[in-house]
This record gives sequence, C-alpha cells and structure tokens, in this order.
Amino acid sequence: MDPLRIALGQINCTVGDLEGNRQRILAAIERAKDQECDLIAFPELAITGYPPEDLLLRQQFVADQDRLVSDIARRVQGLICILGHVDLDHAALHNSAAVITEGRLVDTYHKINLPNYSVFDEERYFEAGSRPLILDLSGVRIGLNICEDIWIDNNVTEAEALLGGADLLLNLSASPYYVHKEKERLELLRKRAQFTGAAVAYVNLIGGQDELIFDGHSLIVHPNGSVLAAGAGFAEDFIVADIDIDALRQWRQQQSDRESRSKSFFSPFGQFSYVQMRQSIREKHIDLTENKPQTEADVEEQIYRALCLGIRDYVGKNGFKDVALGLSGGVDSALVAALASDALGPDHVVGIGMPSQYSSHGSIVDAEQLAKNLGIAFHILPIQTTFDETLAQLKPLFQDLPSDVTEENLQARIRGNLLMALSNKFSWLIMATGNKSETSVGYSTLYGDMVGALMPLKDVFKTMVYRLCRYRNRIAGYDLIPEATLNKPPSAELRPDQTDQDSLPPYDVLDAILELYVVNEKSIQEIVERGFDRDIVRKIVRWVYNSEYKRRQAPPGIKITPRAYGKDRRMPITNRYRE
Amino acid sequence: MDPLRIALGQINCTVGDLEGNRQRILAAIERAKDQECDLIAFPELAITGYPPEDLLLRQQFVADQDRLVSDIARRVQGLICILGHVDLDHAALHNSAAVITEGRLVDTYHKINLPNYSVFDEERYFEAGSRPLILDLSGVRIGLNICEDIWIDNNVTEAEALLGGADLLLNLSASPYYVHKEKERLELLRKRAQFTGAAVAYVNLIGGQDELIFDGHSLIVHPNGSVLAAGAGFAEDFIVADIDIDALRQWRQQQSDRESRSKSFFSPFGQFSYVQMRQSIREKHIDLTENKPQTEADVEEQIYRALCLGIRDYVGKNGFKDVALGLSGGVDSALVAALASDALGPDHVVGIGMPSQYSSHGSIVDAEQLAKNLGIAFHILPIQTTFDETLAQLKPLFQDLPSDVTEENLQARIRGNLLMALSNKFSWLIMATGNKSETSVGYSTLYGDMVGALMPLKDVFKTMVYRLCRYRNRIAGYDLIPEATLNKPPSAELRPDQTDQDSLPPYDVLDAILELYVVNEKSIQEIVERGFDRDIVRKIVRWVYNSEYKRRQAPPGIKITPRAYGKDRRMPITNRYRE
Repeated sequence: MDPLRIALGQINCTVGDLEGNRQRILAAIERAKDQECDLIAFPELAITGYPPEDLLLRQQFVADQDRLVSDIARRVQGLICILGHVDLDHAALHNSAAVITEGRLVDTYHKINLPNYSVFDEERYFEAGSRPLILDLSGVRIGLNICEDIWIDNNVTEAEALLGGADLLLNLSASPYYVHKEKERLELLRKRAQFTGAAVAYVNLIGGQDELIFDGHSLIVHPNGSVLAAGAGFAEDFIVADIDIDALRQWRQQQSDRESRSKSFFSPFGQFSYVQMRQSIREKHIDLTENKPQTEADVEEQIYRALCLGIRDYVGKNGFKDVALGLSGGVDSALVAALASDALGPDHVVGIGMPSQYSSHGSIVDAEQLAKNLGIAFHILPIQTTFDETLAQLKPLFQDLPSDVTEENLQARIRGNLLMALSNKFSWLIMATGNKSETSVGYSTLYGDMVGALMPLKDVFKTMVYRLCRYRNRIAGYDLIPEATLNKPPSAELRPDQTDQDSLPPYDVLDAILELYVVNEKSIQEIVERGFDRDIVRKIVRWVYNSEYKRRQAPPGIKITPRAYGKDRRMPITNRYRE
Repeated sequence: MDPLRIALGQINCTVGDLEGNRQRILAAIERAKDQECDLIAFPELAITGYPPEDLLLRQQFVADQDRLVSDIARRVQGLICILGHVDLDHAALHNSAAVITEGRLVDTYHKINLPNYSVFDEERYFEAGSRPLILDLSGVRIGLNICEDIWIDNNVTEAEALLGGADLLLNLSASPYYVHKEKERLELLRKRAQFTGAAVAYVNLIGGQDELIFDGHSLIVHPNGSVLAAGAGFAEDFIVADIDIDALRQWRQQQSDRESRSKSFFSPFGQFSYVQMRQSIREKHIDLTENKPQTEADVEEQIYRALCLGIRDYVGKNGFKDVALGLSGGVDSALVAALASDALGPDHVVGIGMPSQYSSHGSIVDAEQLAKNLGIAFHILPIQTTFDETLAQLKPLFQDLPSDVTEENLQARIRGNLLMALSNKFSWLIMATGNKSETSVGYSTLYGDMVGALMPLKDVFKTMVYRLCRYRNRIAGYDLIPEATLNKPPSAELRPDQTDQDSLPPYDVLDAILELYVVNEKSIQEIVERGFDRDIVRKIVRWVYNSEYKRRQAPPGIKITPRAYGKDRRMPITNRYRE
C-alpha cells in the first residue's frame, strides 16, 4: 500500500485566543490537504492554548471553544484531523483528542494520565479517561494518546500497540521546556517505539505562555530507533513524513518480539475504543521533499533561543511592541538587552542608564557601548537629586540613624519608579534583570530592581548568565557585550566599593549549592557531604526561605530548569522550617 | 457505662514550626488527661501546620515531622490521641490521622478524598487512602475521617456509621474560612449525624496562614441535631464534652431507620480497618463544667474578626511586631488601621500621611483624627518636592507631553518608596490598603499603593469596607472612624477634584457585577439578564482580565469569600479571552 502520510502542525497557540488558534489550525489543515496527507495532528489543547488554567472553570469558555471545534470539523474534508481540545462529557471536563473526518467529530480520546505535579494542575480541571483509543484505517491502526500518557511505563502506549495492534502511536503534547528535555523525549520515544514495535509520532506545542516555554521539537520515530522526521526547536514548523506501513510491519515480523511481549503484557485498562475510519490510506501523487534533519544545539544556544522565544511571545501576546530596561553596565542587564534585541529587534528595545554617586564611570561607558553594539536606544537619567530629596523628606523620622540597606534599596526603588514612569508614558514593557541566584537568596530590592512585567533570567543562575553572554559574543564574533562588563567583579553599586561577594559566597559555590538545594531538593546534610561548608549551606538555605515573600511579588520568569520559581515551586511565605 | 469524654484541641499551628506545634499538642494532651478524657483529637496535619505546600516535597521535612510524631506518641499515656500528620507509606505520602495510645502509634487512617480545587492542591502531594477506619473501645465504635471526607455524600461517614457501626464520627479538619462557612458546616454535620445516627465530633484548625484563615468553630453534634459542644470562632479553644453512648444508642433504636439505611447503603469501599483499642471507656471522677454556647456573630463581626486574626498571625508568625501604613483620610486605610490596631494593639501601628498638592486639607485632618481615636502614631511626610524632582529628571524624555496616568502613578509610587524606606529602617511591616473592588479592575498602582507585605482587604469589596467601618464605629459607640471619611466621595486624590466614580461605575453596581462574575463565575449574558447594562458589564470584565498582571505581583490578601484572588483563582496573564 501507499505510505501513511502524516502531518504534524507544530503551531504557536495563544491561551484564550480561540479565533486566532482556529485560523492557525485551519491554515495547517489546508497545507496538509495540499500535500496529500492522510492525517494531520495538532498539539494538546491546541484550540484553547495550554494551559488555560481557571478559564476552564468558566462554562462560557468551554462552550465557546466547543463552537469553534465544530466549526473546524465542518471544514475538514479529505483527511483526518486529530485536534487537542476540551471535551465536556456528563458534566466532567476531559483533556481530549478529537477525531475529525469528513466534516464530523466522530470520536474523542480522553487523556488517561493527568499530571498534577511541578507546573501542572490537571487534576484541578479534568477527569481522567479510562479507554485507549485506536483508529482503524482499513487495517492500519493508530493509537491516540496525550502528553503524560506516553511518559508512564506499562500504560497507554503499550496497551495500544501490544494489545490494540497499533502500527503508529500518535501523541499530542504540550510539554514544557527545560534544559535537555528534547533529549529526554527522544530517548523516551525511542524506548516506546522499540518496545512496542510501533512508530511514534509526537507533536508538541511551540511558544511562550507566561512562565512556560513549549519548545516544539516534534518527532517521528521508527521502532528501529531512527528519526523519520523532526520539527524545529523554538519555532513553528509543519512536519510531513511518509510511514511505510508495509515495511514497518515486515521489520516488526523479523524482530518477532512484539508477539511475546503482547502475551505477557498485563493491561491496566478494561476496555478499548476502536474507531473504524471510512478513509483508508490513499494513493500519493506528490513526492515529499526530504525532511530536514535538525542539528543539535549546544546548551547555551538552546537556552538562549528559549529565552528569546519567551520574551518575544510574552511581549507580543500581551499586546506590547517595545520594551525598556535599566542598563547598569553589569552582566545581567547586558544579557537581557541582547536577548530582547534579538527577540524583538533593536528598534524595540530602550536601555536606561540611571547612575547614582556610587556608579563607577566604567558602568555608564560599558552600558553605552553595549547599546551602541546592539543598536538600541540609550538614555541617561541620573537619580542623585531625587535620592537626596527623598532622604531629606525622611530626615524628620530617620534623624541621624546610620546608613544601612534602607538607603541602598531606596536607590533601586527610585530607578524602579523612573522605569515605570517611562512604561506608563510610552507603553514600554519593563524587563526586570534579576537572575536565579539573586532571586534564590533575595539579593534584590522588591519594587526596585525587581520592577518589571517579565524577569527573563529568573530561572538562569549567574554562572549561566556569564556562559550565555560569552555564547552571544562568540556568535557575534566580537565583544558585543563589552569585555569589561564580563570581567569586572559583579556589584549592585549601591554603596561605595560594594561587590556581590561582600554579601554572597562566590557564584560558582552559591550556584552549585542552590542547584542541589532548590532544583534537586537535597537536604543540607547531603549537600555538606558533597564537600560544601556547612555554615555556608545553612546560611544559603535560610536566605532561600527568608526571601519567599519577595519571590511572591516578583515578575514571572521563563522556566529553563526542572524546578523554577513560580508555579513550579509552591512554598508557603509563613513558615518556620529552615532545613 | 460512663460517658465517652472527648477533647478537641482547637490549636493554632504554624506551618513548618514542628517544635512549636509539638509543644501546643503536648500541652493539650496534658489538659485532656487532667480532665479524665478518654480521647483527644487534633486538626488535620496539626504537626506540620496546614497547608505545608512544597515543604512536603522535601524528604527531610517529612522525616523531621515523623520524628516528632514518634516523640509525641511516647508521651501519650492514659488516653487515646488522634493526631493529624503526614504518613510516608511505600514511597507515597498520605494525609493521615494517627491513632496513638499507651506510647505507641498503633494505626493510621489515610484520607480518602483529596481536595484539588479552589485553594487546595492535595493531589499534588498525597495519595488517597481507600479504607475507612474504626476504633473499637470494648464495643464503642469511633469512625475516623479527615476534612473533605465528611463533605462527600454516600462516602466515608456513611460507610463508617452504617456498615462499620460507628457511634461517633470523628473528623479532623483544616477547613478555610469564608463568610457563612460555619453555618454550612453545622448544617452538614447535622445532616451526617441525623442520617447515620452517629454523633459527629469535628475539630477544626484555627489561625491565619498566608491567604487563609482557619476559623475554628469546632463542633460536636448529636444525631438529634443538638449541638453538644462548640469551639470558639477565630481563637484557640479546648473543647471537652461527654457523649452518653447508652443514651445515644437508645435514641437511635427509637428512630430505627439506621438499620434500613444500612441495608440499602452501597459502600464504595472494599475493606475496612478495625482497630481494637486496649483502652475502653473509663470511670469519670470530675464533673464537666458546662459547655459555653457560642453566640452567633453577624456577618460584619465575623469578617472583622477573621481579618484581625489574619493580620495578627501573618505579622506575628513572620516574626514582626509593628506595622505601618499610608493613612490617606480615606475609608480603606482607615479600616486597615482600625483592624491592625485591634489585632496588634495601637502601640504597634504607625500611620503615615503623605500629602501631595492634590490632597485635600480634610484628608490630613481626617487621618490625624483617626490616628488620635485609635491611639496610634501618626507622621506626615509630604511628597511634593520629591514628585517635582522626579518629574524634572524625566523632563528630557517626557518633553512637553501632556500629564496622564503616569504622573498619577508616580505619586503613588513615591509614597510606596517612603513606606518601604520606613519598613527597612524600622522593621515595620507595611500593610497595603487596596480592596477587592480595586484589585478586580486594576484601579491601583503596581509598586505604588499596592506596596506591602499583606493586603488585608484584598478579598473585601468596597461596599463591605463601608459596612465594616460602620460596624467598628457601632462597637466603639462613637465615630472612631471619622464620619467625614465615611461620607466623602471616594477618591485616589492623584489629580485635581478626582473621584473614583470618574473612572468606575458606582460601587454598589461594580461590586454586584464583580460578585456575579468573579465569585460566582457567571457569564456576561447571565449578568446582563439580571438587569445590568451590557456595556458596563463588558467593560468591567475587560478590566478584570487586563489587570491580571498586577494581581500577580500583589501582596497576599486574606480570603473571606468563596473565591479570592491568589491561589484560589489561577488565571493566565497571557490570555486573549475577554468573555
């Protein structure tokens, strides 16, 4: 028979933009039809965007998306469309995959495994399905499943292939990015394909949504482990591939272990749904152009691209065009400026230098040079007179009390006010420049340098900030981010001759401990056993707990690690535990 | 036989304060022993505090609480203790009730129904139990269950009473407060008791934890509907009651419907656990003093007490003694000052007047009068010169652009900076004074009047703010909050002759629409059908969506309605839906 030609619509959906998502879906369906595809699949919850969160508690929202699914269904002719949507069934919501053909929604699969950990809250909204679903195209069988379903061993995919006889497993995903996630996924899909003898097609969402990045990297994997097609990372893509079912079956017979595995597989599911499709695999008249292989990006490139996507989508999807940020001459603001400039174009980024008496001359020079290199606008607004005036106002209460952190924070907050005034006057979205090391230990000023609609580096440790800067300079082929910025000791410049290391351990030590404590949830004892000083570990742990209240009022960041601050890590503010 | 004497330890636990909670628990156990109780019960997760959130993901935390539970167990002699704790069983965590007697933890009940809606995330942490548990004291049977278990019809309580033969149902709760919740609970407990023929003892946590108030109001209800004992609302309490088991059984026999209900009840549970206790009901030598009946508080009194508790516990449990707030002469700040003064004592509250050129003379006079009436400190810090200086700094960029909301926000942010400087210098915790009406529609300045560690009125609509002020004045017997504050048109005083109603619909209309839209999740159409103008409803709905980004950086509030902003309502920021 002709090969099964499938298309994966790796589209950038926006939460709540039902009409915009509908148009993206329809455009991809047209394209799949033009290319004689038998089937097109879209990511999980493509019609609502993912995650829709408490919008799902609004009946009107569910009804509205339902109308659009029906509208899309009417326009599907000549191929099968598998569409991620919300299904309201007997007063319960299901995270679902609609099977659409010839103008009708003929069946729908309900996600069986609902993630309710890390950033996921699916038990809050959905009821779990219980039946694997197999499409049957004149004997060619496709097993449907959704995101988490494929991550669970001895579950849906094995049932669909080993008992349901699926030749192809089709997974609709909205799988959030963190470093190396695309490698984990490739390994997982290979494992599933090899074990079950079925090809696996995996279509993942792409785009930024508040704290989350969906990185695309859709995949089609043969049970022999080879990648038949791969979607782009961090960009929309349209993936088409031919799966030679005859050859696949032949290959499988030679392996001969599917049969024995089927016999020993104990299914956790009582019943299966089989959907007989009127459509079978069709004759193809167009040859597919070769699938471009995706080159593997190194860690820095990957994170850099993830952050760019996160900035572009947060700014654009929230209706902004331009951003502004404080340029201190330091490494964090330099990186955010470079990212924003790459994400939005240099014409859409404004740097603001706000020197005080403690700012070194070099700081302004470096900031100016960076702005020049990036081609972004740069303005200088000194804060000294406002700082003096504010202190004068506070004098009746402060009397002759010695200077302390109060005066340092005050400078940061005057800068925050200036940035917000510019935001209000010119509709510039403000980017906060704090990184994960600072955010962890509270080395930042609430309502000061924490001011902003987005804090792109919130999940990026300081040591990685340096690596990303050097990566960007490598790409540029010169010191786009001035070498002086990278080489001087990090400093908040809020008092004379201050450096970060007056208050904090060296960043390589701090970041290593934070990685163990926050990302890997190691105990103090376990960290000490890896060779770190107990007093330093205890101090850092205390700082992490003590600054929870600041993080609760911080701007959203962009998750790039397995454990980010925000909805991924939900700690109480009121809490006496310090271990 | 002698009556079953039970004690309910309605204690104020603090999340993460394992040692402090242990001491509270041991003190209550001692008291119960002194009063010859057969059994004492504590609230859900009493040893960790509720909710411990992601502390539960730290193995060390679970191990630490385990150690303390064992320690408590060793000290239990001469009575039975039922203690809410976390049980780690086969690598899964359970929300549990430990059965402790004669120095040993003899069994533990695993909560069967895990709430995962509203403010609850229990599926994130716990695995559900599946077995009802019955204690047997020489034939007297007590069915254990935890919080949500008693809210589900035809479930644990029915199984324990109708099939397990329980004479008493004992529920350990951490049930968050909202208006009229205590009435809902009383109705529910009566329903359960009447249907099952068992007495119901309900021990609820008390105290504030971040956004949540646990209101106490523990109860013991007889199946005839009478309240045998009631714990205080919004305060710690120790409730002791005698349950005459002989009389209860006699009464039940006269009703005779338990038997028929038992026959027709279909249990969702396969197995029960029965725990034979070596201890049986003992002879009593001390007569119980009469149980004080709790008088019913009206709505205003209840909310006022809830807010006071929320303020006192947030401030105290986070290690602060004193608070400060901006006193504008308006009604919101007046109410927060009164609440803080009642919660912490007037010596611990500082009011700051920060007039600008737009502040009326009356505003300062009213603020001063309020401070005098409350007996709190009051300082005046004019902001005009700092405002002028900041505008001068912005002049090179602002040029001659007309004044707009920028200049209004700037004033609010200068005030925020002053308050934070005082906070830094004097360790005063800042209270933000925004209410739910403002918070809903974004009628507030991020980093301005939204500055603070706690926003006590965040869940209190403006119309209720007025009611609470008048309530407080009624109690005082005079205009403690000056009549001028209550009678003048509400205004942010950020431009000449401004009033809130220049921008917003009248508060009675706004609040009614917000109640329908936010609290009750009604659709625009449903609200219009109740007689509201469609354009106004649409405008308000848009404001609610558009200000999500501000709420995400707002201080925590105190939940007093069934749907509060914060973890109770999880809306995406990036979201194009506006229905």
